[in-house]
Amino acid sequence: MRILVDMDGVLSDFDGEFLKRWRERHPEKIYIPLEERTSFYVKDSYPEDLKPLVTDILLEPSFFREMMPMTGAIQAMKEMKDMGFEIFICTSPLTAYKNCVLEKYEWVEKHLGADWVSQIILTKDKTLVKGDYLIDDKPAISGVETNPTWEHIVYDRPYNRDVSKKRLDWSNWKDVIDL
Amino acid sequence: MRILVDMDGVLSDFDGEFLKRWRERHPEKIYIPLEERTSFYVKDSYPEDLKPLVTDILLEPSFFREMMPMTGAIQAMKEMKDMGFEIFICTSPLTAYKNCVLEKYEWVEKHLGADWVSQIILTKDKTLVKGDYLIDDKPAISGVETNPTWEHIVYDRPYNRDVSKKRLDWSNWKDVIDL
Repeated sequence: MRILVDMDGVLSDFDGEFLKRWRERHPEKIYIPLEERTSFYVKDSYPEDLKPLVTDILLEPSFFREMMPMTGAIQAMKEMKDMGFEIFICTSPLTAYKNCVLEKYEWVEKHLGADWVSQIILTKDKTLVKGDYLIDDKPAISGVETNPTWEHIVYDRPYNRDVSKKRLDWSNWKDVIDL
Repeated sequence: MRILVDMDGVLSDFDGEFLKRWRERHPEKIYIPLEERTSFYVKDSYPEDLKPLVTDILLEPSFFREMMPMTGAIQAMKEMKDMGFEIFICTSPLTAYKNCVLEKYEWVEKHLGADWVSQIILTKDKTLVKGDYLIDDKPAISGVETNPTWEHIVYDRPYNRDVSKKRLDWSNWKDVIDL
């Protein structure tokens, strides 16, 4: 069994890091708590005049490097590996790739260990990658392959609750993935 | 038709950059001209005591960024795209990823243009990626998939002449790939 695991919002706490920085940089401005987010892209939840400030934070050096792991993520990855699954980290860099590409590699080495770095697949198009499952918080995964080999399992987040697919988080993954 | 194209030694002149730096740094030491290379990994052609110096060069900042394009590579990529093929750049970073990961992205943006950056797939395991052809100078491509979907077409280089697979370079690719 081969499982592809997304990074932002699945392994690493993208939204936590964003909100922390947003409130530090702009304590006087509104913020949208994670539980009130209804759109996948954080920018889409903010009014037009604040969107450039949202982007500025995502592009800050260290933004991707300093994210905390999602609760239970590191343990789940190691357990899945120990169970003999092939685990790959399948992640899309920002189009403005300058900081995020290297920092994603550094994050994996820091939190999972150097031997996990070889499991990284960096691609804008995940439909091309062969696997049995793709665990991803994005509501819909599209690309050049209209019939990917994997089944998309939604990593449960407030902004994807309207998606009617199999879903899990790191507290219940063993009940969801057929072992 | 989807074609996956390797970077080092196929799009970018890895060996040219190495030899240039090697002769600058170590003018008094032996060097192995490309035509005499019989091993895929450049280090394997050098005596034991020089191997660390070879590695030092590959890890220099700017090594990956400053490679020249292979003759005809940029034109071939644009022609293949114009012919309606899906073209992806499928490349494996060094295990010591620090400089090479970001510099591969910068190279693609500089030499092919910003809209090609989205076509990059960075992976240590190319057998996982679905395509019709993989153009790669490495003699044998292995990974977790024993039956990749692609046919490996060898990009012709002195160190892979013993491989009996379909082969091409950018001067004759139109005769080799079934159009």
